[in-house]
This record gives sequence, C-alpha cells and structure tokens, in this order.
Amino acid sequence: MTSHLVTGIGELVTHDPRFDGPLGLVPDAALVVEDGLVAWVGPAAAAPAADRATDVGGRAVLPGFVDPHTHLVFAGDRADEFAARMAGAPYTGGGIARTVTATRAASDDELRTRLAALVAEARAQGTTTLEVKSGYGLDVATEERLLRLAREVTPETTFLGAHVVPPGVDRAEYVALVTGPMLAACAPHARWADVFCEPGSAHAFDGDEARTVLTAAAAAGLGLRVHGHQLGPGPGARIAVELGAASVDHCTYLSDDDVTALADAAAHGGPVATLLPGVELSTRSPFPDARRLLDAGVEVALASDCNPGTCFSTSMPLMVALAVTQMRMTVAEAVRAATLGGAHALRRQDVGHLRAGARADLCVLDAPTHEHLAYRPGVPIARPLTVA
Amino acid sequence: MTSHLVTGIGELVTHDPRFDGPLGLVPDAALVVEDGLVAWVGPAAAAPAADRATDVGGRAVLPGFVDPHTHLVFAGDRADEFAARMAGAPYTGGGIARTVTATRAASDDELRTRLAALVAEARAQGTTTLEVKSGYGLDVATEERLLRLAREVTPETTFLGAHVVPPGVDRAEYVALVTGPMLAACAPHARWADVFCEPGSAHAFDGDEARTVLTAAAAAGLGLRVHGHQLGPGPGARIAVELGAASVDHCTYLSDDDVTALADAAAHGGPVATLLPGVELSTRSPFPDARRLLDAGVEVALASDCNPGTCFSTSMPLMVALAVTQMRMTVAEAVRAATLGGAHALRRQDVGHLRAGARADLCVLDAPTHEHLAYRPGVPIARPLTVA
Ligand SMILES: [Zn+2]
Ligand SMILES: [Zn+2]
Repeated sequence: MTSHLVTGIGELVTHDPRFDGPLGLVPDAALVVEDGLVAWVGPAAAAPAADRATDVGGRAVLPGFVDPHTHLVFAGDRADEFAARMAGAPYTGGGIARTVTATRAASDDELRTRLAALVAEARAQGTTTLEVKSGYGLDVATEERLLRLAREVTPETTFLGAHVVPPGVDRAEYVALVTGPMLAACAPHARWADVFCEPGSAHAFDGDEARTVLTAAAAAGLGLRVHGHQLGPGPGARIAVELGAASVDHCTYLSDDDVTALADAAAHGGPVATLLPGVELSTRSPFPDARRLLDAGVEVALASDCNPGTCFSTSMPLMVALAVTQMRMTVAEAVRAATLGGAHALRRQDVGHLRAGARADLCVLDAPTHEHLAYRPGVPIARPLTVA
Repeated sequence: MTSHLVTGIGELVTHDPRFDGPLGLVPDAALVVEDGLVAWVGPAAAAPAADRATDVGGRAVLPGFVDPHTHLVFAGDRADEFAARMAGAPYTGGGIARTVTATRAASDDELRTRLAALVAEARAQGTTTLEVKSGYGLDVATEERLLRLAREVTPETTFLGAHVVPPGVDRAEYVALVTGPMLAACAPHARWADVFCEPGSAHAFDGDEARTVLTAAAAAGLGLRVHGHQLGPGPGARIAVELGAASVDHCTYLSDDDVTALADAAAHGGPVATLLPGVELSTRSPFPDARRLLDAGVEVALASDCNPGTCFSTSMPLMVALAVTQMRMTVAEAVRAATLGGAHALRRQDVGHLRAGARADLCVLDAPTHEHLAYRPGVPIARPLTVA
C-alpha cells in the first residue's frame, strides 16, 4: 500500500479534539493518506515518512464540504422565471410543475449529463459529499428513475415523492401513492426519505400527511429528513424530533418550543438543523436565526439546497460566507457546519473531518487560513485536493 | 489584418440600441473582432466571413466587467480581524493603519506580486477593466510608489492620499501635504483623485477638506471621484455634482436632496452613483437603496471595492447577484451597472459595451443567458473570452 504525505499545509482543519480550538486547527501541518483514508495528521515537524509527497505551498486544507441537501436531478431552465420574479413578478410556487414537465420528458442521458455537470461544478468548489433528492417526477416511474440516476453519483439519495401534490391530483390519493407503490419502487434506490412539510402552502404537506409519509418510509427501512419552517411556522421540527429524523431543513420560522425540542433532542443525536441561506438570498427572504439555534445548543449544518426554483447554486463557499455575514455565525461555526455539521446531518462518521480513519476527502484553499472562505466572498478559492 | 469570428453565441449583450431591450440583446448571435476591436455584431445568420472562427457552444457573451473602484495595492493579511469582527469584536477602522504599516514595509516586488495575483483573480472572473486606488501609503514616497505599481496594470489609477488622516498627524498639515508635495509626486502616475469624505468619522475628511483636496487635484489635471455616504449622511454627493466628479461611491446614506441633485446632474453627464454591495455584505450593514436612485434617473454602477478591510472580494458576478437579490435591481439593471455603468463611472467610451468600435473585451458565461449571473450566485460561471 502506497502512503502519500501532504506537506506545506499552512493551516489544517481537522475537527480532532486533540488539536486547537473548535475546529481542531493545526498550523504548519502535514497529513498522510493511505488507501484513500487519512492515516495521520499533525504538525509537519512530526510527520512520518511516506512513499510520495505533495507540497501545497502554505495553503489551508480542510475536510471537503458535505452538502446534505440538494435537488440536482432535473431538466429545463427557469432563469427567466427568476429574472421575472426579481423584476417584481410574484412567486407562486407554480414553477415546480414546469420542472416536473421538463423532467418527465427528458431522457436518462439528458438527466445524467445535467446531473454530472452539477456534481462536477460542486466538486470543483470543494464539495466532496453531497445528498441528492428526487421530487421532480411525482409519478412512480419518474421518481424511481431520478433515484436510480442519483444513486450513480452518490450513496446519499433521498426519496422526495412528497415534494408537492401534483396539480389536479387529489391530496389523499397522492399520499396513498407516495406511501404505497411509489415508496415500494423508490426505496431500493434511496437511503433517505423527505417530505415538504409546510401547512400554510396549498402545494405542500401538513403535519398529519408528513407523519404518514415518514412513518411509511421508516417502515420501508429509510432514514428520515424533513423540509420545514421555510415559509412559516409548522410542525416540521417536532415531527423530526418525534420520528428520529437525521435533519430538519430550512428552519427559518421556528417557535421557542421548536428550538427547545431540537436542543433537548440534540443531546441524544436528535435532528441537525440544516440551514439553506442561498434560498433566502435568492428569494429575498429573511435569513434564519442561526445564533438562536447555536446558542440553544442545536447542531447546525449548512447546505446549498441547489434547485432550479429557489436557489440555483452549488457553492458551499458562498453558503459559508452568507452564514457568517447574514446569519451571524462565526467563521469557525460556519466552517464546522459546512463540513462536520453536514456529515452529522447525513449520519456519516467517515466524512466531514480529518481525524485518522476518515476518508481522505480534502479541500484546499488558495489562501493561508480557513477564515478566507468568508473573508473572500464570491472568489473561487476552494477546490478539491486529490491525492492518489 | 486578421479577422476573427465568434459564433455559437446563445445570447449576446451589446448595449447597442439597435438591438433588443435595455441590454441590446441578440439571441443566436455572432461577433467579429479585428485588431482587438469589435468590428461587427449581429445575428449569426447575417455574420460576415472572417479569417478564423471560435464557437462558444451556445453560451452567453457579454462585455467584460468594468470594476471602477478597487484598492488592490497593499500588503499584509487581515483575515483575523475580519473573523474577530464576525465573532463580535467592534469595528474601529483602526485596521487601515495596519495595512499602511505592512504596505510601507513591503518591497516593490512584494506589492507587485500581490497586485498581479488579485488582477489575475478578477480577470479570471470576467473583469476586463479595473480601477486601482492608492491610499495605503499616506506618505509622499509610498503613495507615489503605489500609483507607479498600479499604473503597470491599469490606466485607471486613482490618487487616494486622502484615504484617512494617518494616526498622530495633524489634520490640517496632512491636507496640506496631500494637496502639495504628495499631489505633485502622484499626479504623473494617476488619472483620477479621490477622497474619503465622511464627516462623522474621526479618520476621514469633512466637506471642506474634501473640497480642498479635490479642487487641488482638478487643478493638477486629475479627474475626480468621491467616497461618500458609506457610514452616514454627508456632503459627498453634492460636492461630486458641484465639482463635476465622474462618480460618487458607496451612496448608502443619501438624503432626498442628494438624490435630486444626482438625478438633475445625470442629464448633463453628472456623477454616476457607484454602489459597492460587497462592503455591506462583509460588514453586515444595510445595503444602499438602488431602486430609489434608478427610479430617480441616476445612473448606477457596481464595483467590488476590493480591499483588505471591508470587502476582500474581486468578484463582479457576486456584486451582480447581490445587487439583484439584496438591492432590488433587475438582472438587466445589474448587468448594465457592472459593464456600461462602470465604463461611464470611468468616463470610458471604448469599454463596457460591444458596439462596433469597442475594445473586444469579452466575458463568456458557462450558461445560456446573462440572467444566470444572478440566478447562480457564488458559482464561477464567468470567465474572459480571449480572441487572438
Ligand atoms: Zn430543498
Ligand atoms: Zn473604497
């Protein structure tokens, strides 16, 4: 087995409690990779010998970003709708139907090409693990197809048949479809199930419907995730706690009781609160109150929510910058949320940190410290570091 | 002379009133370059023959960004100060002194290397013209040195000796220095002069001081620019109108009279209002009210203000995305402000548009329309298109 030494690391973010501060920082660090895994991390002066070496010239290295919430399998373009909304047209939510129509009509190869391009785009900016949801099929065959294609690029696939009730379909019948034949067809290709729980929206699902969907998915062996509290108050966070979901995502409109429930559950591995600031940016909406969650002791993750309607960005560095500047997170909190937080939201032990034994998923910055991720907004300073 | 045809342009932004809408859009377009200038633009079907051809595969092409406000010549790193401020430390403005100390101590080659890297970074994101200010020397020799180095990378150099009063120096003596020996040493290397006019700040200059600085600079043959209304109300906009400045920059705190004065002056080529939304992002401040300016008929430009203290970003695509999502500009208004608006802020006729005769400064997007610049925040889709 070949060992590979990475040297010249100006600053290494490990999330290893043996090292400094909340990020487990090691200045002037080195790292040894063996067989795709981190074999050793520590000060360069103490580095063991290795078969090969790469010098990164004083740059900062951190765990690759873990993006635990994306909608990357779809067809069609909605830039015109975005531009019209920015020019004053109201947001009706009807755009999802447009993506569904285009997605159903697209061939596997068309979907695969677009998906591969978006995954490559995310990777080029330092994302090394990402979740991908279905949800633009909304019929059995297409939802199954989207998950099959998603599974080609990531093990973190999420069945989101309960994205919206398709136009013209009876709500109760649709929930029966999602929990019956659609779940049966999709479960073999999915690790997770998710539901868009937003009782105030005519297209989304209320608490009872969300519970029905998630309970059926859990019985089919899937882990659980919840979209909730994006547009208004709702039962999403409480359902996530109650059913042992890994994450509740959006969390813009939480009550004090919701925050308390998440904080209480946090002690026993309860749901991570995954914040999606790119959505608030792109929809001109108020950002979620990250400080309230962090100060209560809730674990926070950051995700892109990359989707064609409300945030068409794959950029985890932008999410870090927005978290710091618009959600009052510290840089360290945001970097943690974009790496270890995302890993916890996906219940992954092997990514999001660089302790010995982790996957050697490395992100390198064209900058000397992790702080530059927020200090240099919009500048593409992050990229993956591939070690053979 | 070799002519070069660019084909396969999915959408071309020309700012040529012969074509469609506020951006002079041409779908399915082509463009001919001869001797570094745009020789022809129009529908691909009508394109003339040329010696060579490049096909851009359906991508959108627009004029390269014109960034009319940067502070790119400096030394030192202030990421730690940024991170501390984001963690709750107050912003004292004392950071400029730190950059001044590091800049004075740096060699020409150190400054040149950093400057070249930042210019390359801006160019890689589609910026083809940028202004560079001095202002981190604050003594005669260093200010002159900074402008000499800036002149190596751009003709748009701005003497900003009146950035702040250096600590421990008498205000009146410093204004005398700036308008006397410093101006004499710097004017040969500068096209413009600028002043940080902010009467509420102890370090900056009030209206009388700003008038003194700008009047002396005009007498020395320099064009005028003003930093104003960043931190609070002030006389910056009125002084800019009165003295015929090309631009007043920041414009966050304008009175109704200021807006009226700018709108009245706009009819006679008065100052452009240059907005710097990266500063508001990075300092967690309220964004300027772009709609109020646009609705009043004031011409708006966007700039990065790239500097180590309040916005260390070179990314004009990010400024477009922030202008649209945080300042309620339409996508077309923001794209115009980042190209033609910047050119007007620098009183340049040859850049910022792609009418025949313009410099062939081209930006190509990994996207089919200009709308994607705001629709895809943080994603590095813009790059320069070099045509031999
Ligand atoms: Zn989502
Ligand atoms: Zn400035």
